[in-house]
Amino acid sequence: MVLSLDTPLDMHLHLRDGEMLEIVAPLSAETFSGALVMPNLVPPVTTAQMVRDYRERIAKAQGAHRFVPYMTLFFRSDYTPEFLEEVRDEILAIKLYPAGITTNSEGGVSGFDLEELAPVLGVMSDLGIPLCVHGETNGFVMDREAEFIPIYERLAQAFPDLKIVMEHITTKEAVAALDRYENLYATITLHHLYITLDDVAGGLLQPHLFCKPIAKRPEDRTALLNVALGAHPKVMFGSDSAPHPREAKEAPGCAAGVFTAPLALQGLAQLFDRHGALANLQAFVSDNARRIYGITPPDKEVVLEKSPWLVPEIYEGTVVPMFAGQSLEWRVVSAK
Amino acid sequence: MVLSLDTPLDMHLHLRDGEMLEIVAPLSAETFSGALVMPNLVPPVTTAQMVRDYRERIAKAQGAHRFVPYMTLFFRSDYTPEFLEEVRDEILAIKLYPAGITTNSEGGVSGFDLEELAPVLGVMSDLGIPLCVHGETNGFVMDREAEFIPIYERLAQAFPDLKIVMEHITTKEAVAALDRYENLYATITLHHLYITLDDVAGGLLQPHLFCKPIAKRPEDRTALLNVALGAHPKVMFGSDSAPHPREAKEAPGCAAGVFTAPLALQGLAQLFDRHGALANLQAFVSDNARRIYGITPPDKEVVLEKSPWLVPEIYEGTVVPMFAGQSLEWRVVSAK
Repeated sequence: MVLSLDTPLDMHLHLRDGEMLEIVAPLSAETFSGALVMPNLVPPVTTAQMVRDYRERIAKAQGAHRFVPYMTLFFRSDYTPEFLEEVRDEILAIKLYPAGITTNSEGGVSGFDLEELAPVLGVMSDLGIPLCVHGETNGFVMDREAEFIPIYERLAQAFPDLKIVMEHITTKEAVAALDRYENLYATITLHHLYITLDDVAGGLLQPHLFCKPIAKRPEDRTALLNVALGAHPKVMFGSDSAPHPREAKEAPGCAAGVFTAPLALQGLAQLFDRHGALANLQAFVSDNARRIYGITPPDKEVVLEKSPWLVPEIYEGTVVPMFAGQSLEWRVVSAK
Repeated sequence: MVLSLDTPLDMHLHLRDGEMLEIVAPLSAETFSGALVMPNLVPPVTTAQMVRDYRERIAKAQGAHRFVPYMTLFFRSDYTPEFLEEVRDEILAIKLYPAGITTNSEGGVSGFDLEELAPVLGVMSDLGIPLCVHGETNGFVMDREAEFIPIYERLAQAFPDLKIVMEHITTKEAVAALDRYENLYATITLHHLYITLDDVAGGLLQPHLFCKPIAKRPEDRTALLNVALGAHPKVMFGSDSAPHPREAKEAPGCAAGVFTAPLALQGLAQLFDRHGALANLQAFVSDNARRIYGITPPDKEVVLEKSPWLVPEIYEGTVVPMFAGQSLEWRVVSAK
């Protein structure tokens, strides 16, 4: 059995910088046509020049693959209208992190004072710059996303023309919110479609499946599967592939993040196939994102076939992927 | 400030075997007068001879400290009445594990067919041998203990004269069950009084706080604190101190267990002191257990004072304790 995907997109990707960028950029660029690149570097990407420089470093690292890094800016409430106008052609979206909620988010927003955020959000709405949000409070780990939904709702109501993307959603509450506001969208990762907290901590502890937001309950995964497999028009694939060096994952104080970029399409094909939903994968992995963001990425046809593929144990001796050393039922046979 | 504890008891302890036993036995024997020793060795402790041999190995390992290892047998539904009569003077209790639910529990009970368990439980009830239970189903990790409560209730109803100890309880549901059946009792660990899932996986992942049952929600911890600090007469301290070699904790597939034995009394004193409940610690850490189990352990007076004590980073280069490298507010000044 063969599956052809037209111009796959990863609408939430961490490419990091330096050596890690060199390792992971070609892996995404090989099978994806483009990706929305997160700005949580150290320091975070907050100026037009930083955006341009980072894009250039990515272009250098990605090799010969045809691949567009769609750039983002790290949300700051003190951006001026002039700056936002200047930077708007350099970026596809602005990413908002609550302070301290995930890797390198220390400079993010503390509290959600709508009055403080309003000036920047108003200009973004006028300029048509989508807002991507890591939607977690600092509450109890299993409740953080559900507790954040009222904030999404306030934002969606206050700025009805602003496209707001609930990033890497993990709960049935976030899925339910999707249909309550026209301007709310969502990305869903590969790993949150596969795992629950049981896979992280139900048997032995699995640091390579530890991520933020943490994988939730079985009924939450079911809700995510429903909209992903059902090609819900407001839901996009975003891997949140988040590489960390092996040492940072396999030690006390394990960093949050699952590395899935090089196996994402294979893993998605397996999942959609198992659920008899292969016909809907194109919408989830490309069409919805193109329509929502209004982008025209370069054509890339990725052909997968149903034939076992062994996921590497580790990439470049540094990054351990999801499904390391396990066999997936689909492999990529060509991407061009 | 000084606190004197009379004959402290740890009613749920893993002493392991071999080298690990040599390391941990003296640490418990130093500050406790006795402990209920779990039988989940490899292979599990299932014969009178195995009980005697294990007790002897413990006695050898514990050094000169005055300390009674109260022995347990690993529950099997095919024990005969004759065997149970023979073994009854060798043991204080029988421990029941659902199969595969925690470290070395593979040989435990599959399913809870009351008819299958009834013959052994009936004899235990007649002989006055308490039943200790690791009460978790194989459901979703956050629900396993609450789902097990109906099984506790069926057991408590079917065998009203059998003392049933819900081991290392972690939920408000288990706390609530305590008062519904006269013959239900519980142990509570140090770590479940301190942590929630937030401490394990809410920030960076902390393998040394990963245990079974997993730490639950804030409202669960509150329920545990209420009965422990309030000296509820059916609740006993049981550390569930569960040493693993550092390599087994700090790697993917991290083993479940928190090592607390050598800092348990100090940690309890700090906790009870912070909550203004020092006067209730004696009941929690000794009196309740003596009454419930009807035991008369050797006198031991343990004196603690409120003065900072630095918890070692690691014991014998092998086992990392809870609070490793951190300071507790109470120290043991003498135990004799």
